[in-house]
Amino acid sequence: MARSDFRFGFGKRVRYAEVDAQAVVFNSRYLEYFDIGLTEYWRAVGIYDAQGPADGPEFFVARATIDFKASMRLDEMIEICVRATRVGRTSMTFAFELHGSGGEDLRAVGELVQVHVAELTGPPTPVPDWVVAKFEAFEGAKLR
Amino acid sequence: MARSDFRFGFGKRVRYAEVDAQAVVFNSRYLEYFDIGLTEYWRAVGIYDAQGPADGPEFFVARATIDFKASMRLDEMIEICVRATRVGRTSMTFAFELHGSGGEDLRAVGELVQVHVAELTGPPTPVPDWVVAKFEAFEGAKLR
Amino acid sequence: MARSDFRFGFGKRVRYAEVDAQAVVFNSRYLEYFDIGLTEYWRAVGIYDAQGPADGPEFFVARATIDFKASMRLDEMIEICVRATRVGRTSMTFAFELHGSGGEDLRAVGELVQVHVAELTGPPTPVPDWVVAKFEAFEGAKLR
Amino acid sequence: MARSDFRFGFGKRVRYAEVDAQAVVFNSRYLEYFDIGLTEYWRAVGIYDAQGPADGPEFFVARATIDFKASMRLDEMIEICVRATRVGRTSMTFAFELHGSGGEDLRAVGELVQVHVAELTGPPTPVPDWVVAKFEAFEGAKLR
Repeated sequence: MARSDFRFGFGKRVRYAEVDAQAVVFNSRYLEYFDIGLTEYWRAVGIYDAQGPADGPEFFVARATIDFKASMRLDEMIEICVRATRVGRTSMTFAFELHGSGGEDLRAVGELVQVHVAELTGPPTPVPDWVVAKFEAFEGAKLR
Repeated sequence: MARSDFRFGFGKRVRYAEVDAQAVVFNSRYLEYFDIGLTEYWRAVGIYDAQGPADGPEFFVARATIDFKASMRLDEMIEICVRATRVGRTSMTFAFELHGSGGEDLRAVGELVQVHVAELTGPPTPVPDWVVAKFEAFEGAKLR
Repeated sequence: MARSDFRFGFGKRVRYAEVDAQAVVFNSRYLEYFDIGLTEYWRAVGIYDAQGPADGPEFFVARATIDFKASMRLDEMIEICVRATRVGRTSMTFAFELHGSGGEDLRAVGELVQVHVAELTGPPTPVPDWVVAKFEAFEGAKLR
Repeated sequence: MARSDFRFGFGKRVRYAEVDAQAVVFNSRYLEYFDIGLTEYWRAVGIYDAQGPADGPEFFVARATIDFKASMRLDEMIEICVRATRVGRTSMTFAFELHGSGGEDLRAVGELVQVHVAELTGPPTPVPDWVVAKFEAFEGAKLR
């Protein structure tokens, strides 16, 4: 998948607190990068609620996958690419790529599956139509 | 997969710095739990080199997968279960489970694929036989 | 101040996710070590409420000081020493030392001033007498 | 000290991975904010070496102080203000303030004392004149 498949990217610099003894971003931090990208993607799509977890549509992460392609080094600028790829009955899937500043500079590919809940401790509930409509409008594609 | 499939488990308490606004462990932290479990598993198997990344067999993480089953709450004791499941030519695969203190209390299932390198910036090289022998002895099973 | 001034210590191993590009614990992590030590100290004293921030006496950190003496290296066992040193009208002060495994192996000295509140967003309120009594009993000393 | 005392500020948004169970930035994270601000300040002053810890003038943190004034909440934009305040023979002192977006919106005040070393494990050595000159030029003030 090329970067051109993504309509959304968000820049983030690699910080000293994020690198490990090999001076590259530690593997657990990749999910923090995905989280930052996803928040900004939701903001761009128009459904992020800055009030935090108590408001707006509530999702929790059910599955995360990361393929590590190349290291991210101290002080590099990384582009976090995100897009919604599928909407199921109660879940949504998001694809991620992390890129360096070069043209063909893929560092990682990932995926998060998120499940929609009406309340935080409740069972999965259908993804609201208005949420799907926002993502479909942003991506210009049917998602379910 | 039941916990009985694991010969190795390591206890860790959920710390305040690890929980998010919902008072449960944030998703990126699961890979820190896996890393702690893997280090202790390697130590139990007898190949952990306390000198750190400059010594001993060198592996980097090529793929990580996490299935989130239930939350881990502040101050809980979690058991991190780890085992080597497969050895390829240049890679090893490790399975993980995170459990609460109850008998059937699965919180997450995961997998890490690690690739062996002779030096940190070099290409994949075959997993040394003595390393495979250590894991096979510990697990009482053929891994390749 | 010698380690003998402390009645309480808690062991913690330095983890890979905590070290920086110099393979020593990054400076921000010292406050995580203090937090772990303080939680376990409160548990030892008998006032820790495992239910988390919504229960029990509520304190927030008003001031933190850390003097860095020597590095903490990957995989080392560190002893986090903690004691209550003073109780003011609405605040308590805690002293910390981080030690390696040697006899004279001081890595850091620190202090946290915590302010008591009746509710999280409310003004400082007097530290409850029963809380002070618990700390004084544990330390065998008057604290105010 | 008012924000007008600072010639340098750097914006950072509060991220989900940084907040605790009270949905505010956890205390240890303040030092990560200081570190980000300090890196960008050094870059603005013209002495940051992106190659990381092996290059350029080498400093380590000897003392950190944080006064917590008000919480930093999820998704807020924070301005990290930094300035060099003093140069000793082998050390430099940096002052920090964290502000919200309002005009009088101070969240924290801090200070870091850093010691110069010729090599990472060596003794303190005098701060190079060219380094002092850079900071004095940026701040328009004598620092020693």
